[in-house]
Amino acid sequence: MNQVAFIGLGAMGLPMASNLLAARFPVAGFDMNPQALAALRQAGGRACDSARDAAAGADALVLMVVNAAQAEQVLFEDGALEALADEAVVVLMATCPSAVVTRLAERVRRAGRQLVDAPVSGGVVGARAGTLSIMTAAPAAIFERIAPVLRAMGDKVFHVGEEPGQGAVVKTVNQLLCGVHIAAVAEAFSLARKAGVDLQVLLEIMSGSAASSWMLKDRGPRMLRDDPEVTSAIDIFVKDLGIVLASGSDSRAALPLAAAAHQMFLATAGRGLGQADDSQVIQSYDLINGNRQA
Amino acid sequence: MNQVAFIGLGAMGLPMASNLLAARFPVAGFDMNPQALAALRQAGGRACDSARDAAAGADALVLMVVNAAQAEQVLFEDGALEALADEAVVVLMATCPSAVVTRLAERVRRAGRQLVDAPVSGGVVGARAGTLSIMTAAPAAIFERIAPVLRAMGDKVFHVGEEPGQGAVVKTVNQLLCGVHIAAVAEAFSLARKAGVDLQVLLEIMSGSAASSWMLKDRGPRMLRDDPEVTSAIDIFVKDLGIVLASGSDSRAALPLAAAAHQMFLATAGRGLGQADDSQVIQSYDLINGNRQA
Repeated sequence: MNQVAFIGLGAMGLPMASNLLAARFPVAGFDMNPQALAALRQAGGRACDSARDAAAGADALVLMVVNAAQAEQVLFEDGALEALADEAVVVLMATCPSAVVTRLAERVRRAGRQLVDAPVSGGVVGARAGTLSIMTAAPAAIFERIAPVLRAMGDKVFHVGEEPGQGAVVKTVNQLLCGVHIAAVAEAFSLARKAGVDLQVLLEIMSGSAASSWMLKDRGPRMLRDDPEVTSAIDIFVKDLGIVLASGSDSRAALPLAAAAHQMFLATAGRGLGQADDSQVIQSYDLINGNRQA
Repeated sequence: MNQVAFIGLGAMGLPMASNLLAARFPVAGFDMNPQALAALRQAGGRACDSARDAAAGADALVLMVVNAAQAEQVLFEDGALEALADEAVVVLMATCPSAVVTRLAERVRRAGRQLVDAPVSGGVVGARAGTLSIMTAAPAAIFERIAPVLRAMGDKVFHVGEEPGQGAVVKTVNQLLCGVHIAAVAEAFSLARKAGVDLQVLLEIMSGSAASSWMLKDRGPRMLRDDPEVTSAIDIFVKDLGIVLASGSDSRAALPLAAAAHQMFLATAGRGLGQADDSQVIQSYDLINGNRQA
């Protein structure tokens, strides 16, 4: 890979692009935010005026945009796809519904290029440390070609299938579990608080029992505080559990736990807490269960 | 403690009583099952003909019976309570609804004795290894007296509160999380299976990601099999999530995830799988989502 184009230099994208540069990949990047472009230049990258400029002659185009609509805009309306080198690979790393990824991959294929479905997990912390999990779906030969680029950004690079869309499914399933686990901890703590149990003691016990989860240990301590630092926002799960349910709807699969959890994140966002830490879904439980005043 | 009476020598109770004997507590036990009594004798305990005989003159009466109704029967109808030594302590280790424990404790107190609320977590494996978590609620002085007995059965003995019933709440919350986590894994795997993703690869990825839980790692592998060994039965979660919801109902707390999960365990039991491994709740998801024929 002689030239990597990187579109979407946000909280995740900028450190990911920086890790590519640190691994000596030449990166040309674009973002609507001039500060992000300045930061890319600082990290040794080439800041471009448009997605098309960044893509010009690149062998790989990494998309770390907000959603599938932005990915389509960049590829087909802003002209990034046609500006790429022959044989170039489009690497879609944003979280998108599986059916949309499948459709995008088909459009990219018709334009004579290949789409690699490669959503990530690990958040901003993993993006900075280069320790993301990357759930890649693409034909094996294409996976082999792009793997060095992916390994510069994540230390757990999985090849989950040959069909673009299957990576998105794995990410969707990941988010189903993450979102349900956060809501379950909130539901459990809300019941315990109502019964007058010391939540700090409870958290210690649950962390060492069969009731434990990664989310319990990570979000649990922040649920005991009213205004913790934000490591991942309520709005992320409003979006991602929305994708989970859309995926279930597309394939006609009932997902009762995900649906119930989504409602609690939605209501929390509806009270203006969309940018609060996702642990604060507990406020919705505490409100309806009478542990808290509106 | 010169003499411990132990009622309920089932899959959990027998190894717990054996661990008391190994720690040099004299144990007199009773169970309806003659084979269990023979096994107690084999382990060095005294097998009795009735709960009252086992309790006669004992300083502690451990109840590891199936439910609260059995505990009441043993204490008040079979005469075990009045047969105990003066100052004896009743240790209720079965999983019971918190409100019932509070009521039982009051009846025991009126009879001049004390009830220690001490439900356990850790299953048969923990009972055998003496590594149970024990969630104890009792006045501090009584907790101190009984703690050596508890530590012979579990290596994580917590004093969660002064009021009997608070241990039951912690156990209830524990089971809420355990039951919801099992159902969530089943729901996630069912979605992934429908999309044609390799569940073995998925399990590996989820086990190392923020989507992980103790239950995912423990039950996940057994969900990939149709007839795995039974380490904990579907009927346990039919009962325990029933207690969770009764507890929510008693205190008027909405528990939408626990309610949804309970439905899936109920339906699984309803098809005759009550004694199957609880991982098999996935069969209900796979049935309704068309991954499996009835």
